[in-house]
Amino acid sequence: MKSQITILGGGSWGTALAKLLSENGNDVTVWLRDENQCRELSETRINKKYLPEVKIPQDIVFVSDINKAVENSQILLIVTPTQIVRGVLKQIKEEYKTNKIIVNASKGIEVGTLNRVSEIVAQETKNCTYAVISGPSHAEEVGINMPTAVTVASSDREVAEMLQDIFMSSYFRVYTNDDVIGVELGGALKNIIALGAGISDGVGYGDNAKAALMNRGIVEITRLGIALGADIHTFSGLSGIGDLIVTCTSLHSRNRNAGYLIGQGYSKEEAVKKVGMVVEGISTTYAAYELARKMNIDMPIVDAMYDVLENNADVKETVNKLMLRDKKEEKL
Amino acid sequence: MKSQITILGGGSWGTALAKLLSENGNDVTVWLRDENQCRELSETRINKKYLPEVKIPQDIVFVSDINKAVENSQILLIVTPTQIVRGVLKQIKEEYKTNKIIVNASKGIEVGTLNRVSEIVAQETKNCTYAVISGPSHAEEVGINMPTAVTVASSDREVAEMLQDIFMSSYFRVYTNDDVIGVELGGALKNIIALGAGISDGVGYGDNAKAALMNRGIVEITRLGIALGADIHTFSGLSGIGDLIVTCTSLHSRNRNAGYLIGQGYSKEEAVKKVGMVVEGISTTYAAYELARKMNIDMPIVDAMYDVLENNADVKETVNKLMLRDKKEEKL
Repeated sequence: MKSQITILGGGSWGTALAKLLSENGNDVTVWLRDENQCRELSETRINKKYLPEVKIPQDIVFVSDINKAVENSQILLIVTPTQIVRGVLKQIKEEYKTNKIIVNASKGIEVGTLNRVSEIVAQETKNCTYAVISGPSHAEEVGINMPTAVTVASSDREVAEMLQDIFMSSYFRVYTNDDVIGVELGGALKNIIALGAGISDGVGYGDNAKAALMNRGIVEITRLGIALGADIHTFSGLSGIGDLIVTCTSLHSRNRNAGYLIGQGYSKEEAVKKVGMVVEGISTTYAAYELARKMNIDMPIVDAMYDVLENNADVKETVNKLMLRDKKEEKL
Repeated sequence: MKSQITILGGGSWGTALAKLLSENGNDVTVWLRDENQCRELSETRINKKYLPEVKIPQDIVFVSDINKAVENSQILLIVTPTQIVRGVLKQIKEEYKTNKIIVNASKGIEVGTLNRVSEIVAQETKNCTYAVISGPSHAEEVGINMPTAVTVASSDREVAEMLQDIFMSSYFRVYTNDDVIGVELGGALKNIIALGAGISDGVGYGDNAKAALMNRGIVEITRLGIALGADIHTFSGLSGIGDLIVTCTSLHSRNRNAGYLIGQGYSKEEAVKKVGMVVEGISTTYAAYELARKMNIDMPIVDAMYDVLENNADVKETVNKLMLRDKKEEKL
């Protein structure tokens, strides 16, 4: 089965997925805003900036005109940063974003609206079927065929199974799921905990503290997720704790690294500057703090993170308060 | 509230817990089989072999006569290896193992009987109330007051809450739980996945593979646990995925390290010899393989591990088979 797939965005993850989907026998077009970059990738078959170790298959087409890129495709795969998804979709003509399958691989919550990507897509396209792909998947490893397992979620079971067939390969195992909200929230909210794990490392705490933070962190995320309509079990899955594990323990995670600098005493502005890229965990902490209040959910770790980020609270004192608060049962 | 507590076993975890409980104001006696070691610890206040960086409080008493050690205590804390728990309890006079609280901190399943420690205790003592303490807790970190969070489970809620009061401190946060079976199984079965994580690292796979293994591993453990009477949510807790995270990612875990050597091509016998200590994950893999068959539970990762350990199956081929087996929903 050969599908016409257009990938919106050519960062590391977009490039790794383009290679995978092309190897699996699909017609793959990658849209990149920048014409020079399109030409360079097309000629060199190397994404020097984002995924230099991967040879890009010859038959992948790079296009900088977004309407040309998407006009004939059945499937649009979104791999841009979350904050620009709406703007990118707005550039596509109505007729080219109707009756398609839209798969989102971007993890975040839109600042201001607090929308998930599924909500943005619902607002900006017409009669499209939405799916989200997520899980512990460094592009650098997928790009060199290292074993990886992910989740594809859609409320349309047939579409989820079709996408499972399209993505699955000997090194890329795909599970289906019907909980779109849970998969989207897990992917976005994990960055808060990764930032916190970095702070814990930066201040000099050990593996016990980090494991407790990850574990109690996913409990809080689950609590908020359930209130927002997600299934409790999704957060124990690949897109929940699975992705959280990779993000909190990897030295490549910019959220963890920004946290590390904050733990070492840098301000959040200095930390972001030093990391040199968007640190989603910071804006997501503010979003979760707001959502927790709105939904009346107890999120002590998010509150503590907010206190550190917004009020420059002392990290060790904040941890002390967390450790000594009311004695609890181990429950949601 | 001051309790009379006897700790059976003076390895690293026994020593760290002795210090914690003494600091919390309890009368603590530690039983060690070896008289010379008792004298040495008593005089030097350093456990040179197992926890050299920790100063042992002056008022902890070391005793080598087990009946003297336990006669006046209200609480017995078991911190010996699982395989010798039964033998140790058999040495205690009936009258000294009646009507006490027994807290188990040992993680494993008895070879041969497939008993959990709660079952051993029920068989070898009389009218005792049982609790188990577990979670991500390297002794080396607890010993130097690094933040740590654990679970205490008992079917007797009042006892669980009393133990929460006794153990909790500014660096040691304790949650209560009523699922003894789940907490015991999580602690024991995680060693299988730690062994597998080591194999994955040893053979050269990356973070994605390890996160997938940990995540799908806990799914299998949960499946088996439910069949054996545990609560599904316990495996998402500190004693489940929390402990699994620490064990799979720490370079100090001997299960992970033995797996690493197997992944590098050593036989399991050579790996155990090189690690120089008991590698519980190997016997636990065999126990889980047996239990999965007995309870008719699908455990593909345990089967694969068994195949590698028992039949010297090639690791890469085994992973390939795991990746390409039937397409699945992400469900229990």
